[in-house]
Amino acid sequence: MPKLTLILIALFIGLNSPAQTPKGVMTPSQLSQVERGYGMFIHFGLNTFNETEWSNGTLPANSYKPTNLDCDQWVKFAKDAGFRYVILVTKHHDGFCLWNSKYTDYDVAATSVPTDVVGEVAKACKKYGLKLGLYYSLWDRHEPSYKNTPAYLDYMKKQLTELLTQYGEICELWFDGGWNKKDAEWNLPDVYNHVKSLQKNILLTVNHSIGKPENHSAIRQPKDYAKGDPIRYYPIDFRIKDPNFARWDDPKYYDWKGQLYYLSFEHTICLSDRWNWFQKKQVLAARPLDELEELFYWGTANDNILIVNVPPDLTGRIRTNEQIRMLELADRLGIRSGVSKLPSGPKNLAFNLPIKASSETEKEPAQQAIDFSLETAWTATDTLANLEISFPNPIVFNRVSLLENAFMKDLGDGFSSIRIFNIQEFELQSYANGQWNSFYTGENIGACKTIQLPINIKAEKIKLVIRKASGPPSISHIAVADIATKGIRKVKNNW
Amino acid sequence: MPKLTLILIALFIGLNSPAQTPKGVMTPSQLSQVERGYGMFIHFGLNTFNETEWSNGTLPANSYKPTNLDCDQWVKFAKDAGFRYVILVTKHHDGFCLWNSKYTDYDVAATSVPTDVVGEVAKACKKYGLKLGLYYSLWDRHEPSYKNTPAYLDYMKKQLTELLTQYGEICELWFDGGWNKKDAEWNLPDVYNHVKSLQKNILLTVNHSIGKPENHSAIRQPKDYAKGDPIRYYPIDFRIKDPNFARWDDPKYYDWKGQLYYLSFEHTICLSDRWNWFQKKQVLAARPLDELEELFYWGTANDNILIVNVPPDLTGRIRTNEQIRMLELADRLGIRSGVSKLPSGPKNLAFNLPIKASSETEKEPAQQAIDFSLETAWTATDTLANLEISFPNPIVFNRVSLLENAFMKDLGDGFSSIRIFNIQEFELQSYANGQWNSFYTGENIGACKTIQLPINIKAEKIKLVIRKASGPPSISHIAVADIATKGIRKVKNNW
Repeated sequence: MPKLTLILIALFIGLNSPAQTPKGVMTPSQLSQVERGYGMFIHFGLNTFNETEWSNGTLPANSYKPTNLDCDQWVKFAKDAGFRYVILVTKHHDGFCLWNSKYTDYDVAATSVPTDVVGEVAKACKKYGLKLGLYYSLWDRHEPSYKNTPAYLDYMKKQLTELLTQYGEICELWFDGGWNKKDAEWNLPDVYNHVKSLQKNILLTVNHSIGKPENHSAIRQPKDYAKGDPIRYYPIDFRIKDPNFARWDDPKYYDWKGQLYYLSFEHTICLSDRWNWFQKKQVLAARPLDELEELFYWGTANDNILIVNVPPDLTGRIRTNEQIRMLELADRLGIRSGVSKLPSGPKNLAFNLPIKASSETEKEPAQQAIDFSLETAWTATDTLANLEISFPNPIVFNRVSLLENAFMKDLGDGFSSIRIFNIQEFELQSYANGQWNSFYTGENIGACKTIQLPINIKAEKIKLVIRKASGPPSISHIAVADIATKGIRKVKNNW
Repeated sequence: MPKLTLILIALFIGLNSPAQTPKGVMTPSQLSQVERGYGMFIHFGLNTFNETEWSNGTLPANSYKPTNLDCDQWVKFAKDAGFRYVILVTKHHDGFCLWNSKYTDYDVAATSVPTDVVGEVAKACKKYGLKLGLYYSLWDRHEPSYKNTPAYLDYMKKQLTELLTQYGEICELWFDGGWNKKDAEWNLPDVYNHVKSLQKNILLTVNHSIGKPENHSAIRQPKDYAKGDPIRYYPIDFRIKDPNFARWDDPKYYDWKGQLYYLSFEHTICLSDRWNWFQKKQVLAARPLDELEELFYWGTANDNILIVNVPPDLTGRIRTNEQIRMLELADRLGIRSGVSKLPSGPKNLAFNLPIKASSETEKEPAQQAIDFSLETAWTATDTLANLEISFPNPIVFNRVSLLENAFMKDLGDGFSSIRIFNIQEFELQSYANGQWNSFYTGENIGACKTIQLPINIKAEKIKLVIRKASGPPSISHIAVADIATKGIRKVKNNW
């Protein structure tokens, strides 16, 4: 190939490649994403009908048989619950496609309920005024060509063409499972250009966006990320590391070959208290409302985004149980029906202040209860323990959120685990004018307990006293706030 | 004494005796009491300083030593928390008096903090516009004359004269501990007349108002009361049986010598989750807010009254911990600062409907979960259990309250016990149009869990499924309601 042609190709690629520039300013599409801020993630497919989370591509397509499929109900509910968009899992690692793909028979069209789920969701999104994003697994455990990477990339691009040309505007595209091949094998610049050539405003990303390529086990958590950490998959438009949470002072700038790129973080959480993404037969408890509220505030702060997985069940509808918890959250946030702006949470007055504990482990010192990460924790060495935060300038507060760190218990079925919380009795004290004042006693904390006080309290110090626990107590985060002082949801171009 | 004089005395007593007539209509004072509806009970005294609930009259008076006594704070708080009046324990069974009584040295005047607590509370009640009621123990374990009944009655009447002449208007007078002498020994008609001669609008009662005299152990609970049950202490103006709760269809008419008298029931509850009336050194958890809300609705419904004990601590002030829970309740009820009327609770649509359980004990059948008593319960025989209520006419509901029946665990210190709740995981289902729909899953219920739904649900049946419990589950009450339909707080003269 003549040199000039190569240059022209390179220029062409350059023009179509990252809308994102290394200038550190969000593109209009990135800004729209942050403004959307809050989306509903939908996992629905073969796994829903087989009591599993992941499957290996051998489950029979005809095991997919919703008895009352109603995609309109999903999106109508999403609108009611204040979500701004939907991200639909079109194909999970098992390779089963929720639309009628010309390139495989492992899809809904091969089942007794051949409804094009992607099409129905797209139609409902238009009807209710929500944006639509799609999740597509790079890893495919069914597709025979998967072992032959060039052939599979061709398959993938053809399927992406279907997804990106048949359903109107798609706002985001999520790749997952990239770890199953070497990073470079995915030939991401080419796939990225293909995607952008079909949808110029789409935002694309790959799960585990940041980290050292080819060394999956060395991938750090968002709590460790620093400005200039390497982008693992390039090019991408935003960043995910499911199901982790960004740190509060998330650095936002990541490196590709010496250039820094601005990337917002899209957080993913599962509504289920048991961390299941695909709905199971038994109706399980949803996360506590207090926890969802705190995760909403954290997840949507600082120009980041939160998507919550609300999976339909075997009938093909979202259950009342899940609807109720999300509507409770919408009511608490004041965003029912998506009419109001997403609210900011109250500003945490306790971040990174002097703190001391009655005991702490070397790996989990007291300071981690008020650091910039939800993913670090303080753990005591005894079941009776206390934690004391000092405010260099006395504060006035009326809200305390306590997030307890769970110990995970595997239920042995290959995908379920439950969260075990140790704290059984606690007390909160404030110190002012030379005196300690006990202002609250409670029993279990669990994933999160938010105490909204009916009075303002002045404090030079605050102490959490654990009076009873079934094991060493562990706290991942404490927020102390005055509800009149809001934190900042958007700080665009201010990093 | 000439016969005529006796007749004149009898006539005079008759004129001054029960303002209450057997006509079955509330007197103006009784009506005022029901309109007040919600009072704060204050236990404070020697026991506060001695880590005990009851003492035998030998504790030294000088062990009473509040470091920062502030009765104004008590009443200011009562006003803020929406209470309409205060009932102060002026003398408990130990005989220690909270005012400077001429007739004993076992009083505050003999201590290092001689403040007249009754006087300070009376002054603060005037300042904040609250009514004042007094509790006075008939039983006196200190006063030497107690063994000589006529001498003691004289002592008592002199003390009552002090209490009813020195502190302005007193709205209620509570006698307790009557069981320690034979009922007739108290010569209640005489004491009643004495009291009424000093305060004509006062209402007087004796604890354990209803029951067979001289047979204390045979006294039934309010759940068993029927119209025409004998009045144990006559005359009285209202009815108490601390700490029991009246049944919903409380009969209200009780018998004295063949005449029926109308008596409202004043419920007493302790704010503490551990059932302590006098504050202890350790700050203990208050009852859950959901429980307080339900007990408020029940306790103030049907022309009855609720008083909540909020005890000051060793410093002589009401702690922030207790204040916060009561202010939370006031905010939930919308009665902060006593500005608004007391609200009615939502009407329970499940009272006495057909119900069936997976298992039940002979003494505690399923029906008791929806009967007219909070004091009866359904108890299953297995840890996995369910309860199903049928609605002859389909209902629309958006609120469910579940009150779990506690098993009491004695802490062995002579006065403390904790409530143990068995239920660890539950599910709620509704049935309509031929299908069961799971609408809520949760973990612990505890004393009370109120589920305020963000949607309306139609139901022909409702099922509570207990999925995990540490012992046989027991439910004392289930209320299913539509918050738009209120129950009735006042039904005066309508019984």
